[in-house]
Amino acid sequence: MANPTAAMLVIGDEILSGRTRDANMHYLAGELTSHGIDLKEVRIVSDDADAIVDAVRALAKGYAQVFTSGGIGPTHDDITADCIAEAFARPIDIRADARALLEAHYARTGLELNAARLRMARIPEGATLIENPVSTAPGFTLENVHVMAGVPSVFRAMVASVVPTLTGGAPLLSQSLSVMRGEGEIAGLLGVLAQDFADLSIGCYPFQKDGAFGANVVVRGANGARVDAAVTRLADELGL
Amino acid sequence: MANPTAAMLVIGDEILSGRTRDANMHYLAGELTSHGIDLKEVRIVSDDADAIVDAVRALAKGYAQVFTSGGIGPTHDDITADCIAEAFARPIDIRADARALLEAHYARTGLELNAARLRMARIPEGATLIENPVSTAPGFTLENVHVMAGVPSVFRAMVASVVPTLTGGAPLLSQSLSVMRGEGEIAGLLGVLAQDFADLSIGCYPFQKDGAFGANVVVRGANGARVDAAVTRLADELGL
Repeated sequence: MANPTAAMLVIGDEILSGRTRDANMHYLAGELTSHGIDLKEVRIVSDDADAIVDAVRALAKGYAQVFTSGGIGPTHDDITADCIAEAFARPIDIRADARALLEAHYARTGLELNAARLRMARIPEGATLIENPVSTAPGFTLENVHVMAGVPSVFRAMVASVVPTLTGGAPLLSQSLSVMRGEGEIAGLLGVLAQDFADLSIGCYPFQKDGAFGANVVVRGANGARVDAAVTRLADELGL
Repeated sequence: MANPTAAMLVIGDEILSGRTRDANMHYLAGELTSHGIDLKEVRIVSDDADAIVDAVRALAKGYAQVFTSGGIGPTHDDITADCIAEAFARPIDIRADARALLEAHYARTGLELNAARLRMARIPEGATLIENPVSTAPGFTLENVHVMAGVPSVFRAMVASVVPTLTGGAPLLSQSLSVMRGEGEIAGLLGVLAQDFADLSIGCYPFQKDGAFGANVVVRGANGARVDAAVTRLADELGL
């Protein structure tokens, strides 16, 4: 049976302008792979309401689970929660339990729960809160969309709350073989291998090292014995 | 006048599985920003023909320029050129000038131009070749889509050939201010600033350092004097 599918939506101008390098995608990709959920698509859009709403609708329809990162803080450019509400045509307002979390947090830290911070308690109707053990302001799940913070430490904590609750499939196993030959030299062999092991995914990722071309061949699949068999045959045929 | 827009499509299972961290997006984002082209969206899809064709069509329609990375090598999972041809309903075949480039390259290096390598001369009808000074196999431009390699050194060389030929806008200037206060504390001020400087983009990117919360405020715009004015006022109001 095929594994459940997922998509990710990264929200933020700072990544599209080249100012920041996204760290959350790589992390989520690894966590989903271990849990047997196949990340099939990632989109990165700017802090633009139409772009966010369109992407949320398309991804929520196309994949079993959707994870968003970014845009749920207190500032004027944090519009993700409102966009999710719009995408699902739900009302949004400050919610009592989210507000209580923030009140307790700011009382503890001696900071003021001002109007800007209170925006972080705006939650679309019908959503479930996602715990934030790092800085309290919660994420939320609405339908199949999990809305999480962009700050990497908070994002990771939220992923740790959400992913174990989802139905996973067979974790994808992988083995790789580094070959110091050009991709073009082993491409024919890999094509035959891909046909003979149609239940596996065989990828070839070229690299350059000290001016010579090499390739990492990665064999992935749910059945460890088959992955072993394919890698062993590849090594045999290459005389490694 | 608004700057021209662009989107990027990254093709490759290895990024979605968490095996590899994409390096090309961050590079392209920086190059486009300096050239006055606004990168508005990035999509990452797997080596799946339908996913690639759908994404190419959507992005080519939505943005002035589209850049793809990955899937143009010699192996069975390199299907980008065929997908681009399909997206634009163009025939695709081995093209004489691309074949001649490969023949000369492999004659020089003493390697065989086998059937797998010859696939890299498959170019959709009507495309223009993009030079590859690193490993010869060319990229190509079809309509507003620039099809480039995934290997970072080759990708960068192709970006260097293509981007200077495109019409850019005013390069985006930016200044940033690092503030050791929680985002929620400065959010109100930033909201007022965003209204008073509606021609600029004002972003706030929270971070954690030694357990304390801070924020980088980034002010971007085409007019340097306005960017200066906004940052100066922000610093004044914060007493920095």
